[in-house]
Amino acid sequence: MARADGRNADQLRPVTLTRGWLAHAEGSVLVEFGRTRVLCAASVQEGVPRWRKGSGLGWVTAEYAMLPRSTNTRGERESVKGRLGGRTQEISRLIGRSLRACVDDKALGEYTIILDCDVLQADGGTRTAAITGAYVALADAVAWMREQRLVTADPLVASVAAVSVGVVDGTPMLDLCYEEDVVAQTDMNVVMTGSGEFVEVQGTAEHAPFDRRMLDALLDLAVAGCAELSRLQKDVLSGVRA
Amino acid sequence: MARADGRNADQLRPVTLTRGWLAHAEGSVLVEFGRTRVLCAASVQEGVPRWRKGSGLGWVTAEYAMLPRSTNTRGERESVKGRLGGRTQEISRLIGRSLRACVDDKALGEYTIILDCDVLQADGGTRTAAITGAYVALADAVAWMREQRLVTADPLVASVAAVSVGVVDGTPMLDLCYEEDVVAQTDMNVVMTGSGEFVEVQGTAEHAPFDRRMLDALLDLAVAGCAELSRLQKDVLSGVRA
Amino acid sequence: MARADGRNADQLRPVTLTRGWLAHAEGSVLVEFGRTRVLCAASVQEGVPRWRKGSGLGWVTAEYAMLPRSTNTRGERESVKGRLGGRTQEISRLIGRSLRACVDDKALGEYTIILDCDVLQADGGTRTAAITGAYVALADAVAWMREQRLVTADPLVASVAAVSVGVVDGTPMLDLCYEEDVVAQTDMNVVMTGSGEFVEVQGTAEHAPFDRRMLDALLDLAVAGCAELSRLQKDVLSGVRA
Amino acid sequence: MARADGRNADQLRPVTLTRGWLAHAEGSVLVEFGRTRVLCAASVQEGVPRWRKGSGLGWVTAEYAMLPRSTNTRGERESVKGRLGGRTQEISRLIGRSLRACVDDKALGEYTIILDCDVLQADGGTRTAAITGAYVALADAVAWMREQRLVTADPLVASVAAVSVGVVDGTPMLDLCYEEDVVAQTDMNVVMTGSGEFVEVQGTAEHAPFDRRMLDALLDLAVAGCAELSRLQKDVLSGVRA
Amino acid sequence: MARADGRNADQLRPVTLTRGWLAHAEGSVLVEFGRTRVLCAASVQEGVPRWRKGSGLGWVTAEYAMLPRSTNTRGERESVKGRLGGRTQEISRLIGRSLRACVDDKALGEYTIILDCDVLQADGGTRTAAITGAYVALADAVAWMREQRLVTADPLVASVAAVSVGVVDGTPMLDLCYEEDVVAQTDMNVVMTGSGEFVEVQGTAEHAPFDRRMLDALLDLAVAGCAELSRLQKDVLSGVRA
Amino acid sequence: MARADGRNADQLRPVTLTRGWLAHAEGSVLVEFGRTRVLCAASVQEGVPRWRKGSGLGWVTAEYAMLPRSTNTRGERESVKGRLGGRTQEISRLIGRSLRACVDDKALGEYTIILDCDVLQADGGTRTAAITGAYVALADAVAWMREQRLVTADPLVASVAAVSVGVVDGTPMLDLCYEEDVVAQTDMNVVMTGSGEFVEVQGTAEHAPFDRRMLDALLDLAVAGCAELSRLQKDVLSGVRA
Repeated sequence: MARADGRNADQLRPVTLTRGWLAHAEGSVLVEFGRTRVLCAASVQEGVPRWRKGSGLGWVTAEYAMLPRSTNTRGERESVKGRLGGRTQEISRLIGRSLRACVDDKALGEYTIILDCDVLQADGGTRTAAITGAYVALADAVAWMREQRLVTADPLVASVAAVSVGVVDGTPMLDLCYEEDVVAQTDMNVVMTGSGEFVEVQGTAEHAPFDRRMLDALLDLAVAGCAELSRLQKDVLSGVRA
Repeated sequence: MARADGRNADQLRPVTLTRGWLAHAEGSVLVEFGRTRVLCAASVQEGVPRWRKGSGLGWVTAEYAMLPRSTNTRGERESVKGRLGGRTQEISRLIGRSLRACVDDKALGEYTIILDCDVLQADGGTRTAAITGAYVALADAVAWMREQRLVTADPLVASVAAVSVGVVDGTPMLDLCYEEDVVAQTDMNVVMTGSGEFVEVQGTAEHAPFDRRMLDALLDLAVAGCAELSRLQKDVLSGVRA
Repeated sequence: MARADGRNADQLRPVTLTRGWLAHAEGSVLVEFGRTRVLCAASVQEGVPRWRKGSGLGWVTAEYAMLPRSTNTRGERESVKGRLGGRTQEISRLIGRSLRACVDDKALGEYTIILDCDVLQADGGTRTAAITGAYVALADAVAWMREQRLVTADPLVASVAAVSVGVVDGTPMLDLCYEEDVVAQTDMNVVMTGSGEFVEVQGTAEHAPFDRRMLDALLDLAVAGCAELSRLQKDVLSGVRA
Repeated sequence: MARADGRNADQLRPVTLTRGWLAHAEGSVLVEFGRTRVLCAASVQEGVPRWRKGSGLGWVTAEYAMLPRSTNTRGERESVKGRLGGRTQEISRLIGRSLRACVDDKALGEYTIILDCDVLQADGGTRTAAITGAYVALADAVAWMREQRLVTADPLVASVAAVSVGVVDGTPMLDLCYEEDVVAQTDMNVVMTGSGEFVEVQGTAEHAPFDRRMLDALLDLAVAGCAELSRLQKDVLSGVRA
Repeated sequence: MARADGRNADQLRPVTLTRGWLAHAEGSVLVEFGRTRVLCAASVQEGVPRWRKGSGLGWVTAEYAMLPRSTNTRGERESVKGRLGGRTQEISRLIGRSLRACVDDKALGEYTIILDCDVLQADGGTRTAAITGAYVALADAVAWMREQRLVTADPLVASVAAVSVGVVDGTPMLDLCYEEDVVAQTDMNVVMTGSGEFVEVQGTAEHAPFDRRMLDALLDLAVAGCAELSRLQKDVLSGVRA
Repeated sequence: MARADGRNADQLRPVTLTRGWLAHAEGSVLVEFGRTRVLCAASVQEGVPRWRKGSGLGWVTAEYAMLPRSTNTRGERESVKGRLGGRTQEISRLIGRSLRACVDDKALGEYTIILDCDVLQADGGTRTAAITGAYVALADAVAWMREQRLVTADPLVASVAAVSVGVVDGTPMLDLCYEEDVVAQTDMNVVMTGSGEFVEVQGTAEHAPFDRRMLDALLDLAVAGCAELSRLQKDVLSGVRA
């Protein structure tokens, strides 16, 4: 079955990861999945949240947000509304959890790394693009910490990448764009390590419940997609940081 | 492997569903999974949110909250803090999505059913208990609507039940209590229809990523647990409403 | 004059105080005045608010709230609105002041006892039911502190109970239910110690000002009602804690 | 027993009511009880709150606030904190209820009168001074409405005045200043109509419960104080509006 | 060209500065520019904001607000809305910056002086009146600090005064009242020291851009107006504090 | 005197205006002044704010914000804090006022154009860069409206550009970078039309008041800088829209 942009069902959109997009951040990446464009900045801060002080353990957290005109119709700013929406918080929590799976808190020591993932342009799959980009920003920030001798052992114990999969017109598909996402019967986001293990699986029946066979088909697609993204991350990180 | 309360790995805690616990609500259930105790109230309101007006379609939504002393140590009220936490919103959204899977919006017509799920006592699995109880409250509210002749066709097209599963000390287990939940390597919440299809699958690697085999083992446990809960819902609903 | 539920003008509704309703709280009571049902939890916390630190004195405070569907028509959650209403704060302050009248701050030492009073079902008189129930929860929490040897001298210096009185169709009546409350010309809440002294008197002319004679008649009813509630508290507390 | 400022126990502080203190408001009064100084402005607005629309009935409401440096030590602004405190809301509600006792909603028609009571300087008794001053501002606003022919029948059916009483060193006293207020064992605010009936009685045992005899003594003082204030209001209103 | 109130284009309204208007504040001034009436209170507090602790430097800040009925039609309270408006914050920041130009932070030492400027009645030029009055309140607060021996060297290094100018019907005018302000093509606020230097120049083309010649004409008017206000401040401060 | 980056005192940083940077917005520009990088999006919406409805007039407004890691050290998100800071609101208001000077409200008709100016990277002069870029985005959005035949007459009546000037070490300089900005004695932002008239002049004495001669020198620099920016805008707009 042909997709809107001519891709196969099991094909990713063109993915680019541009390191060092920001001058100030310890790590930064502009990640693009087709027209989806997310700016990921990793900030290293001394100290940890109050409930973790004195533990000797570090902390990794994330904040996700969309620029008001990243979308087709303008969305109101959450700063203007005075409150974070449920979707925003849910995705921020997902990104934070996913990135914490990469880090050995003990090796990090009492530092906090904050991953700001700001969607500049949205065309489906912003949360999984954010995770994929944020990992590269995190790796650069950790490399910076090692250069600054803020850590001795390597706190990075895994890589993570993420992709969305979904069922469109009965067909399981990889990496949905917005147009596909709105009509998907089922929508699933999968986060995996570079060694092929699951960090997070979130599947939702948007319009119709799904059976075990479909679940398995979606997982198969996601496993292959994440593996490709992991290779891409590795390639990009083997280059020189901007 | 023996569990703290003597259950087998694939065994639910004692589950009770008390219908008609509240005098005012169109449907209400006190649901208990062991010591976890959630009060679910279904409120029927004329009209739908603004973005849905004039569509002829109904709306089902949910709000989840915990009483401050439902937990072992007292939590601050979100009304006092002046903002909803991310966890609260995430769970409210999950419950709402799950219950919408039961309802034909068209048959419901321009009515809103709000499911308030207030945790009176927490001992693990509050969100899945809430979904399981809320379905019964919803069914009673829909029955009330039919008695009042507010709807003609039956808006209820499926039942849903939910359960948590997780990996404790390497062993997949059904229906974790709080003590087990805090040490689980992986934690998964599964929502299923009475006919055995998936509505939502949310698996998280809390302390260690998991492989495909473990994912399958967890799904097996959840499928069996949800089936048992669906039977229980059916039994309870076949009795007379309080 | 006959009342809706057949009571005499000077008669309380059936009152029950169920101790130990919650597993985690240091003291907890489900209090019922007819269909009014309030869950009172007493939480003991080390330390006192900042403005009291180092004084050697303890602190007792209260938070009152209503579940959204405790009432006949659903009320919006204050956590969702993002602000506490005036009524909520006013009642929380009243409960806190009333319970502080029971406690010797010096004997309590630098501990805080928070009384959470959550209305599960409302049918008039929720604030006075909350005070009456919260006292029993407080007494149990103080007993727990003594068992834990957190205090040496007894911080409990009095008991308090509370009741509402009002003028319906020109007749002064004790313990108004919701139906009576909405039509009352005058509404008064009275908090008294077990030894028969006043802690708080709040009388409001809802629809018509009242004269001194009516004020005296209302006070007479309240004095008798509080005495009966004090006896009931004493009886319940003389039993074994759940 | 001599008081700090040489007054007798049953004596008011010097009270002045300056009408027309503001150029824009339909009614305005600067009320002073000794050093306590409250600016009361009555604003007439077409229309009523949404829940009252179409009823043909008017609405009277009040907002009380303190300037940050009205007090001995500066208080943080509630606009800066982003939330109204419980005390502010409680007093605003009390003033609104008290003034509503003066007005026939039907004769007022669908207009709203808002009474803004801003404490410029605080020295005890600000809420009772506010009520006493707000009544005069309300009377002037109603007179303005009659001049503008916005109402035909007179909406003003009563006058209200208010005073605080309390027990200091065992002695019941009228109109406590701040210095007396902080040491009072019992504190009571009483709102009465010009014809000598009660609109609101709020007595609180600050440091010790009080018996019926003391309650009666406090009420006697308040009745006399309110009568004197009512006379003063009448005198002031019989003069020409500024 | 004649102005509404008969003034010349280069003439100030009658200006009065009443010192010691409040009993509690370390410095206080009621400033009036015609019908514009602002109450300025200077509060001295030990300590400085956290980001300045340990620097040995003091801090001066300001908060501006309008009473709801200071204006022709009532404005909603920002405390009720739960957020400060942009205009309020902008003016508070302007007043704070302007007053900081008067003070040597080092000589002040680790004290904070807060200038509360509350508009009791508004008729144009409230921010410039606030600055002009706040300087006098500040000077009195600093004098109080010297009497209390909280500072040794004089922290006051300059005086500031401010005035508005604008273009009405093509004519540059000094000290616009509200009626003139709403029709002005250009509006400018100028803050100057007593020695005739600029602290702040804020010119805005409300309805039409302006050229350099007009800018110069407005500055000429403002320079003369500020000089007159500085003389007035000096005269008032040479008198005895109330 | 040499500047950090080798520029002359009267020289702008390299300025680029990239049109069509976003796929969804009606107009969008990435504007860069050296390392300062602001994304400006113009959104056209049917309708105007409530207070303008039925007037037949359009409305132009702006929202400015900084990404948390646009700066050297990470700033907390205003959406997370739950309130807009004073600086944010002040700049948003400035941008909105400036852009409204370009538009004939009548010709625009009842449409709203919102200019979102998000700082991706900050190195001084973000507000003036935002205005300069937002004008180009606005022009593209207006061109889009004409293509869509939403307007007939041209609503664009002027162009605006803006630049910062300041006094560093006694020397007036054009277009300060962050490093220069923090040490500037005086800081001024000037907004001008393409025809050389002033729209806004905001000069602030950061560390020392300034005299009329310095004010004139700063204005001379700003006039020349704005003229150059206006030429650049014209050139860029004469090209083809991306």
